[in-house]
Parts: sequence; structure tokens; C-alpha cells
Amino acid sequence: MNLSELIKSNSERKFFAVYPENPKAYEESLQAAGLAAFQARFNSNYTFIDDNATDFIGEEVSPYLQTGIGIKYAQYDTQTIINNSASAFNIWKKTDLDLRIKVLTNSLDRVKERFFEMAYATMHTTGQSFLMSFQASGPHACDRALEVLATAYQQMTVYPKDVVWTKNMGKFELTINKNFKPIPKGISLAIGCSTFPTWNSVPGIYASLVTGNTVIVKPHPKAVYPIAIFIDELKKELKANGLPTNVIQLAIDSAQNPLAKILAAHEQVKMIDYTGGNTMGDYIESLNKTCFTEKSGINSVIIESVNNIDPVAQNIAFSASLYSGQMCTAPQNIYVPADGISTEDGNLTFDEVKDKIIGAVSALLLNPKAGAPTLGAIQNDATSKRIEEVKDKYPNQIQLNDLKIDNAEFEHARIKSVNVLVVDAKDESIYLKEYFGPLICIVKTESKDQSIAIAKNSAEKNGAITCLAFCTDADRMATIEEEMNSVFTPVSFNFTGAAFVNQHAAWSDLHVSGGNPSGNASFTNADFINRRYIWIGNRYMS
Amino acid sequence: MNLSELIKSNSERKFFAVYPENPKAYEESLQAAGLAAFQARFNSNYTFIDDNATDFIGEEVSPYLQTGIGIKYAQYDTQTIINNSASAFNIWKKTDLDLRIKVLTNSLDRVKERFFEMAYATMHTTGQSFLMSFQASGPHACDRALEVLATAYQQMTVYPKDVVWTKNMGKFELTINKNFKPIPKGISLAIGCSTFPTWNSVPGIYASLVTGNTVIVKPHPKAVYPIAIFIDELKKELKANGLPTNVIQLAIDSAQNPLAKILAAHEQVKMIDYTGGNTMGDYIESLNKTCFTEKSGINSVIIESVNNIDPVAQNIAFSASLYSGQMCTAPQNIYVPADGISTEDGNLTFDEVKDKIIGAVSALLLNPKAGAPTLGAIQNDATSKRIEEVKDKYPNQIQLNDLKIDNAEFEHARIKSVNVLVVDAKDESIYLKEYFGPLICIVKTESKDQSIAIAKNSAEKNGAITCLAFCTDADRMATIEEEMNSVFTPVSFNFTGAAFVNQHAAWSDLHVSGGNPSGNASFTNADFINRRYIWIGNRYMS
Repeated sequence: MNLSELIKSNSERKFFAVYPENPKAYEESLQAAGLAAFQARFNSNYTFIDDNATDFIGEEVSPYLQTGIGIKYAQYDTQTIINNSASAFNIWKKTDLDLRIKVLTNSLDRVKERFFEMAYATMHTTGQSFLMSFQASGPHACDRALEVLATAYQQMTVYPKDVVWTKNMGKFELTINKNFKPIPKGISLAIGCSTFPTWNSVPGIYASLVTGNTVIVKPHPKAVYPIAIFIDELKKELKANGLPTNVIQLAIDSAQNPLAKILAAHEQVKMIDYTGGNTMGDYIESLNKTCFTEKSGINSVIIESVNNIDPVAQNIAFSASLYSGQMCTAPQNIYVPADGISTEDGNLTFDEVKDKIIGAVSALLLNPKAGAPTLGAIQNDATSKRIEEVKDKYPNQIQLNDLKIDNAEFEHARIKSVNVLVVDAKDESIYLKEYFGPLICIVKTESKDQSIAIAKNSAEKNGAITCLAFCTDADRMATIEEEMNSVFTPVSFNFTGAAFVNQHAAWSDLHVSGGNPSGNASFTNADFINRRYIWIGNRYMS
Repeated sequence: MNLSELIKSNSERKFFAVYPENPKAYEESLQAAGLAAFQARFNSNYTFIDDNATDFIGEEVSPYLQTGIGIKYAQYDTQTIINNSASAFNIWKKTDLDLRIKVLTNSLDRVKERFFEMAYATMHTTGQSFLMSFQASGPHACDRALEVLATAYQQMTVYPKDVVWTKNMGKFELTINKNFKPIPKGISLAIGCSTFPTWNSVPGIYASLVTGNTVIVKPHPKAVYPIAIFIDELKKELKANGLPTNVIQLAIDSAQNPLAKILAAHEQVKMIDYTGGNTMGDYIESLNKTCFTEKSGINSVIIESVNNIDPVAQNIAFSASLYSGQMCTAPQNIYVPADGISTEDGNLTFDEVKDKIIGAVSALLLNPKAGAPTLGAIQNDATSKRIEEVKDKYPNQIQLNDLKIDNAEFEHARIKSVNVLVVDAKDESIYLKEYFGPLICIVKTESKDQSIAIAKNSAEKNGAITCLAFCTDADRMATIEEEMNSVFTPVSFNFTGAAFVNQHAAWSDLHVSGGNPSGNASFTNADFINRRYIWIGNRYMS
């Protein structure tokens, strides 16, 4: 592990991957071992090395099997968890930065040995495909943690530890010795979501830990197992270094007795990392504590001009279908001007563009080799129900209705194909809402400028994490970039082939800008680290 | 102006001063010219180059003359000011960083030519002595602005503007061109205070400007003139570079019709810098906007052990008397154990320590050469009245009552000497309040540990910007530092001679930690810059 190389890579915002994302890059025996470990966990208690509980709870359900997986986790009284954290904090805050970095990087190498178990754990809690489960929860999450460690090391060593300060007073020199210390804030809470239980939570957890804070992880009760693997390995590595295992703790809860608000509002909790819906996210932000939120938004696609429509339609179809639109980066609203778009082979009408997109979605999903693996499964039954309600409400707008997709491996998988509504720009009440899951809207706008204006206003009001634009004119590209950037939304231009707008996290893409309602923090800039501690300068008369 | 040297100096947290703090370092003719410019301003309208107003208002009163100085400033409708700012923002945000830096550094050099006028303007609005007025409002404010510019330049160039990003996909390489842009947030509001109208406001103003935001300055209605000089010279330099003068604007108000809340709550105002009392500061923080506050707090002195009490008592006396305790860094509560302190010459009882401090205050203030210049004048009559009320309420605790100090130069100066209450640690209701102005409390504690505990709890609850400690034992020093740092309060140890705890701003001392209720931001760290813009990464398929 070469931290200075990571820092350089991080500063240059180039690609780096310490943990290969291809499962084939790992020892072949690991896959079978991972599957066995996963199966052995079924219907048992997942205990950590320091567990001494009598109560165990758990309610995870596999979206592929649609049955409970029966894993339970130790449940403790909330104040006990807080007290444990406070007591571990007294030691962890004084632990040397180099040792903290060592413990944290080692914990990632430990998790690496369990990447395959992690992949199955993620599949059978989130409904992601095996490949996405492997990549997102394992290597991408670990790479993201490394980015955080590299940024933290850089930021926390930016001032000298000690400096001799002199000031010429005319007849003499005034000399004062100063020290500069990054003082951690205290107990940190990480609230996880059901769809990306490690990828979204690991950055905040490692950012709080490396800066000397202790962490309580409160995962979504339906997606505990993947992050439990991180907690497990962190505890082992802490113990191996003679450090308190309660530096990291799991706070398990249930849908019936949720803990998020209780923990977030607790006066001893100083910081909160949150990924999830807006209602809870807005509550977290209202607490006036240090918090880092990733909430929801409505991502847009702006189509103005293309060389060739086919690869464009295929790219959009894949981005909208991947994990059934359950990614925070997935596009929802596709803006196409009423008078169509230009291509190398002449103009296309609105209807032709719309038909190309619908055709590409159908072709992708009906391809037996591609459909099921691209869609994965729906994490939560409520997602399917919400989309059925929308379809019932707007029957005239549905132009692609549920396709029947089978999953050869899991006959009971909770599958829902991508639904397409075609709407007019004036029907804002239909499309200016977030539809989490497999539903996209193709919006007929009055003009290219109206497309931009709607996408911009929506990003400012509803939030947006991504914007995908297709445009072959340099001046118009500059306009789109400026307008969307002004509401703090990044733009990806003319993605086709292997580049997808959803891939927006693991490689220094400043995932979530922090500047619009989709979240108040970016995972990969200095603030994500620096707001977790306070620089203090002390002075000594020499 | 060597920016890279400033960046280095800033990073090393060493001393640098581009603008000498000694008035004698400037051309001799400047002082008379400054006085003449100041006098010419009396009873006239202060107009900027772009003023076209019909209404002019102003209510500044000299604390030295106790008469109005009659200067009036152009008054505009609030929405007009906002619209002007929004329109200037569209150009300023696109102005190259190098040009912004040039305009801003040049504006400081322009202000430098008016340092003496600035000194008189500050004296006759704030009541500071001539020397403090010169130093704080002129060179120290300009040096602080330069620190901000250096930090901003460093932070805003931390990512490459463009990068070619490649990812090995096995059979081919995926190549994406990326750009990274710091996008400014918009209109910024700077709310000034009555005691340090430039020193406290200039950092936030220059931080917002350099990051591409426009600024509306809403000074305290009793202290407008000093910051008007900065606005004046900024407008001239903007115009000289063909840029909109409304990048910076003055919003004048009056005690009867205050504008601070109206502007702060305005939906087009995206950021707020605030210095002042807690009530308004808490309101600003509650708005859930990007804000940087410096509020009030209770600063402490902890005395455990000294080599020699006399220089210690003199140091405390000077720090408490300087500008009549109207500095945010001034000590208020002095904690001394009931069983006394140790010195090189044996123990001193509590009463001996207390008498030494009271004696040192009296000796300083009754020294005709030192008393009046050290105290300056009381900015606001309400400050004097509040202290009289405290004395009426706690007659048994007063052990040093108003001394009669004359100011030879200004017979009508509003002078109040430092009052000393001596209280028991259990009388928290007396001393755990902020007494802004010339009043200190010597607190008899049960033990050294209780001294620390009270100072710590007070910093956590009431806020604290400084802590001065006297201690000759290395282990105890470490304890004091750790305990006070844990509530994000810096400690200055064993200051005597020319080192004073009040001097806590202009030289990278991380003034206000941002970690306790005395404020939510530090003037000299990266967050003070970085929270004013959002990094956005755009991607282009190549």
C-alpha cells in the first residue's frame, strides 16, 4: 500500500484501483469459499469478537429468494452503545495517525479476503446482480475508503506539528513555540441505506475513523450483512493492535423500532453520515450537527444532437435498466425537443427518438443473456408497488409497460422491467417527481433551451446527482455545462459504449456535488475529511 | 506581491507581514494627509464611483468626541442591491482566478495609501486607540486578506483543470476527458460589528470575492466608514479592470430600521459572514445557509504555578485592559485555586494573587502615559451601562471599582476603567456570563482541577476564543492543553512581556476554532475558503 502514490493519484483525479473489480482477478478458490461462508451464515447469529449480548434480531430478506435469510445480530441498549463509543474515543483520539492509517488499510485487506462472501451478502440483501454486488460492495467500496485515507493523510499533515514563530519587535525578537493539532469531534453515526450498504457508507465510516472519531453504524435493517463484514474485520484489526474494538460498533434496529432518529438526536453524537430518502435526510440536516448527506434527486438526460442515435439509445437503455433504476445516479427524465434532433444522417422527429429509446430498452431486457443480469432484483416490495400506482394514475402516458423477464437462476426473484412514460413538458406534476426504481419519463419539450431550463430548475429544486447530455455542437455543450454546473450538477457528454453515467463514484468523480438538494457533501473532496475535526493552534512562550 | 511565498508562509503557519504594522514604517507625509482626508469627510456624503442615489443616511458617533461625525452613505432599495449583485455575479463568476487575485491584491495596495485615514476613521467609530486603529483596520486586516487569497489560490488549484482519464477494460482502453471546476455559490452577505469593522469582516469579504462570489457588506450602522474605504478602493480597482463595480456593495442601515435579518433571509443570498453577538449569530446559523460566524464567548485565564507573579499579573492586566476589554479575545474569568499557587519564591495565597492582579491593573491604568491609550474609549454607551448594572447587582464582589482615567487629548472621551469582581467558584450565576467590556472576574476555585473543569465546561457551553494558562509543570500543561483543546479552545501558555493572548488573529493563529459556541468557522483554514464554492467534475467521451 503506497499512500503517497494514492495521494498523487487522488490529487490528479486520475483512475486508480488497488482492488481489482474483476472477480476473475482473484484466486479461483475464493469464490467457492465465499459461497460456503455465505451459506453457513444462514439462520444463525452473526457475532463479532466482542459480542456479549443476549438479544439478537434480524429481518433481512433475499430479493432473489423472497424469503428471510435468518441472520441475526446482537442488540444492545442505545446508551450502552454510546457509552462504549465514548470510552473507545478516549483512546482512539490519542492514537497516532500513522497507526490509525495502518489499522484502517489492514482492515480493507482483511475484507478483500471476503469479497466473494460480501458479493453474495450484497446480492441477497439488495437485489443487485452478482457482478455489481461484487464490484460495488467489495473493490469499489475499498478503493473509495483508500481515497478517503489518502485525502485525510494529506489534509491532516498540511500544517506543521510544531513551529517556532518569531516576530521582530525592533529592539528584540519575540519568539513563541506553536503546535497545531487536528482535534476529532467525537462520536460519529453512519446511517446506511438498503441498496448500497457498503459503497455508500464506507467513505463516511473511514473518514470519521481516520480523523480520530469513533463510529456507530446503523444500517438499514434489510441490508446489514454486507457492512457487518467491514465492522467484523475492523474489530479484528483493532484488537490485533491492542486498540478498543468499540471504535466501531453496529447498532441494529428493525422496521418497527427504528433507531436512526434516536441516535442522530443523541447529544453525544457529534457527526452523522447519511444516505437515503429526503424526509430523514432533511431531518438530519435540521439537527444543526456536522452532517454529510446523500439524499435523492431527479437525474436528467438532455438530447440535442447526436452522430448516430442507436448507440445513444443503447447507452440510455442500459443506464436506466442497470439494477432496475435503483442507483442514485440512474437517469429518470429524458428531455427531447418537440421538433426532434439532428444526426449525421439528417433529422429525427421526437417520435423517432422516443421509439429508438423504447426499442433499445426492450431489446436489452428481452435479450435472455442481458435482461435479468442487468435488472437484478427489486430490493423492496414497496418500490414495485409505487411504480404500479404511477402507471394506474397515468395510463395514457405509458408507452412501455412491464415486460416479462425471467431469471433462470432464481425463479422467485422480485423482477420488474423498466417502464416508460411519454409526457409533455407542461405535465410537470407527472415527471417532476422522483420515481425510485424502474421507470423513466421521455419528456417532449418546446425547444432545446426549454430542455435545459427544466433540467436546471429541477436540479435546483429537487436535486440531481448526474446529468447525461448528447450534443455535437461545442457552443451548446458549453451552455449545457454552464447552466447545469450553476446548479451544481455535473454533466457527462455523449457517453456511448462502455461509459455509463451511473458509474459515478469510485474514481474521484466528486460523487454528489453537495451543492443541490440531492446532498450536502461530496465524497471525495477535502471538506468530507476536514469537517470531522477542528484545527487548534496552541502557543507556548519560550 | 509573491503569492507562492505567501502560500508557503501560510502553510508553515509562520509569521508574515506584507504591510508593516508600525505607522513609522510609512512615509511621514501620509499621516497628515490621512488626518486631512478624515477631517474633510466630516458632515458630508461618502459617495462611491458608481453611486446614483438620492437618499443618504448615517449615524456614526465618535466615542472620543461623543458627537456625531455626520458622514452619510447612499441608501438603496434592498431588492435593487440584490439585483445589482446578481447581475455582477454573472460576470465575476466567469472572471479568471488570476485576474480576480490581481484585482483583490491591488485593492489592498490602494487601501494601504489610506491607512492613516483608516486609522482615524476606526478611532472615531470604534473607540480604539490610534495605534490599535492603525494596526487592526489597516495592515492587519490587509495581511489577513492576503492570507485568505493565498489559501484560496492553493485550494482552487488543487485539482487539475483537465485530465485524460483512462481505464483498462481488458480488450480496449476506455478514455474519458474530465474537467474540474470550482463553481461559486452566488451572492454573499458580510455583516460587520461595531468594534472591529474591517479586521473581522475583511477575511470573509475577500474569501467570497476570490472564489467568484459577489458581496454585499452590511456594516454596523455605527461603524461604516472604515469598511467603506475598502469598498471604495475595491470598486475603483474593479472599474480599472473593466469589471462591474457592483461585485462589492454597501448596504447601509440604521438602528431603527436594521437590514441584517432581511438580507440574511433573502433567498438570493447564499452565504453569510457574521461577526457580533449570539442572538443574531444563532439566527444566522439557523437559516441553514452556508455561514461563517464569530459570536461571543467567555475567555478564561487559568493560574496554577508561575516563576514570578509580577510579569504574569502585568500581562493579565494589559490583556484585560486593552481596548477596555472590547476584544473578542480578551480574558474575562481568571481561575485561581483557593489554596493558592506555587512560585519560584514559595507559595502565594489566593488573596496575594488576587491583589497582585488588581494592583497590576491599577498601576497600568493610573500610569498617565499608559492608561488612556491602553483603554481607548467605549464604543457604545450601552456597554458602560451594562457594567454599571452588574456592579449594582453584586456590590459585595467588587474589589476594583472605576478608576478615574483622563484622556489628555479628548476630554469628552467615553472612558471606563477595568472593574474587578472577586467571586467564589460556586457563584456561577455571577461569572458564567459574558460581560462585554471592562470587567473581569477573579474566581476562587476549590482546586487546580476544578479551575480546568469550569473553564472547559464554560467553553463548551458558552464558547471561548482564547484561554491563557500559567503553569510551570509539563504534565499539568499537557492536561490543560488536552482538556481545553477537547472543547476546541486553544491555549496560550505563560505569556509575559510582549506576548498577549489578545493577539490572536493576523498571523495564522487559527482565530476562532469553529468548534465551540463562539463561532462556527475559523478564519485561516481551508474550510473558510472551500465552503464558498462547489467542485464539479464534468466528463466528455473522447
